[in-house]
Amino acid sequence: MTAGTGRTGAAMIGARIWAIGDGWIPPTSTGPAPEMTSHDSACMLNPNDEPAEVAMTVYFRDREPAGPYRVTIPARRVHHQRLNDLRDPEPVPCGADYSVVIRSSVPIVVQHTRLDSRQAENALMSTIAFPAG
Amino acid sequence: MTAGTGRTGAAMIGARIWAIGDGWIPPTSTGPAPEMTSHDSACMLNPNDEPAEVAMTVYFRDREPAGPYRVTIPARRVHHQRLNDLRDPEPVPCGADYSVVIRSSVPIVVQHTRLDSRQAENALMSTIAFPAG
Amino acid sequence: MTAGTGRTGAAMIGARIWAIGDGWIPPTSTGPAPEMTSHDSACMLNPNDEPAEVAMTVYFRDREPAGPYRVTIPARRVHHQRLNDLRDPEPVPCGADYSVVIRSSVPIVVQHTRLDSRQAENALMSTIAFPAG
Amino acid sequence: MTAGTGRTGAAMIGARIWAIGDGWIPPTSTGPAPEMTSHDSACMLNPNDEPAEVAMTVYFRDREPAGPYRVTIPARRVHHQRLNDLRDPEPVPCGADYSVVIRSSVPIVVQHTRLDSRQAENALMSTIAFPAG
Repeated sequence: MTAGTGRTGAAMIGARIWAIGDGWIPPTSTGPAPEMTSHDSACMLNPNDEPAEVAMTVYFRDREPAGPYRVTIPARRVHHQRLNDLRDPEPVPCGADYSVVIRSSVPIVVQHTRLDSRQAENALMSTIAFPAG
Repeated sequence: MTAGTGRTGAAMIGARIWAIGDGWIPPTSTGPAPEMTSHDSACMLNPNDEPAEVAMTVYFRDREPAGPYRVTIPARRVHHQRLNDLRDPEPVPCGADYSVVIRSSVPIVVQHTRLDSRQAENALMSTIAFPAG
Repeated sequence: MTAGTGRTGAAMIGARIWAIGDGWIPPTSTGPAPEMTSHDSACMLNPNDEPAEVAMTVYFRDREPAGPYRVTIPARRVHHQRLNDLRDPEPVPCGADYSVVIRSSVPIVVQHTRLDSRQAENALMSTIAFPAG
Repeated sequence: MTAGTGRTGAAMIGARIWAIGDGWIPPTSTGPAPEMTSHDSACMLNPNDEPAEVAMTVYFRDREPAGPYRVTIPARRVHHQRLNDLRDPEPVPCGADYSVVIRSSVPIVVQHTRLDSRQAENALMSTIAFPAG
């Protein structure tokens, strides 16, 4: 799934639309912040030679979506976004089911990871997000 | 994988058929319900502008499939379904191998997550489901 | 990715070739067998109306592949195969890196899951396998 | 996604470009080395009949990428590469966000796994990497 060519003519890697199905921010944490703070992350890579203008929309069970949450990922850079750190236009509530759609101006790669440290020993889960376009 | 256009002409996101290979509901739990109750979840997102009529079929090792289990996900909404909460037409047994095929009237996105709290410290696993059509 | 039609003319779900990259059977276990025994599983679903003749080949770091390991999954049935239970033509060694290619006569769906109970509290990981053909 | 045919005319399995979004090497470990040492692994399978010349590029949040890190995977062999074991041309720092793009001369399969043993009880996560070309 090479995704066209960039301004330099080089083939670009990734997809422009991604979706994360299982969003849920554990409401409590055990251990030192920030590394053991419970979190849900959208780990984004822009391996291409143009900046990625990214807009995230957050979907809920019982209300209209929130967002867009905007971030710019420079060319050839990584941006691991903890969903619980988003503030603008509004925080994502903890302990509530949500999902995310991520749209980018150039192809990127997205992986979804959760660290759950509600208990003394932390748990991890991760998956490639769904490349949707 | 944009999946055609909806009634408004907007491109739709997702797939109409999804499969989960590894279903298994841990038969015991440790900690407060419902958040620490062991569960297998099909986390579904309908990011599109039409309601999704979803039918889940559950497959087993040694008997014919159960279902369909039906749920409607409104436009632009999330539905995280714990498989152990299904009752109609019949409960999914705990501690038994199963798999799931999910069919939707409009494209959706599905992620499969298990929380296993049989022991004092919980374990998590998650994966994008398989987009099958 | 509907995979052609079966003998009944119904569209089939899945893929005929799958690969698992990260095979590793934890060499020790804590807790009651078999549910807490450390294992690596290939969780296979045959949602179609014909039996699936499955052949698994196991690849290693430093020797030629082992197999084929053969199993038949009846129509509309699940088969969750612990790799550590394979005996014919030879066991898969514990504590050694391996990978698996799974070929099936009809489309199936494969998810890879590991339960690691070397320590007192178990850890889980899971991913959809790679649909390779 | 069969990926063309090899020199013998046999269909090849896998993809030539893969991406891992969520790289992060836990900076501490609990338990005996090497099996309980915290690590991030790129688990690669070359199921084909030609050697795979692999080049890994590591991307960061705040600097230009590192690499290429080169490895050869013989025909029909597995190579599970711990990212924390890379030394040439430079180590990958622990406790820092990164991502990886893997390019191979012939198709391979890549799965990303992390073992986090910072605490007394280890946590695991795994996902198929993103097949990008």
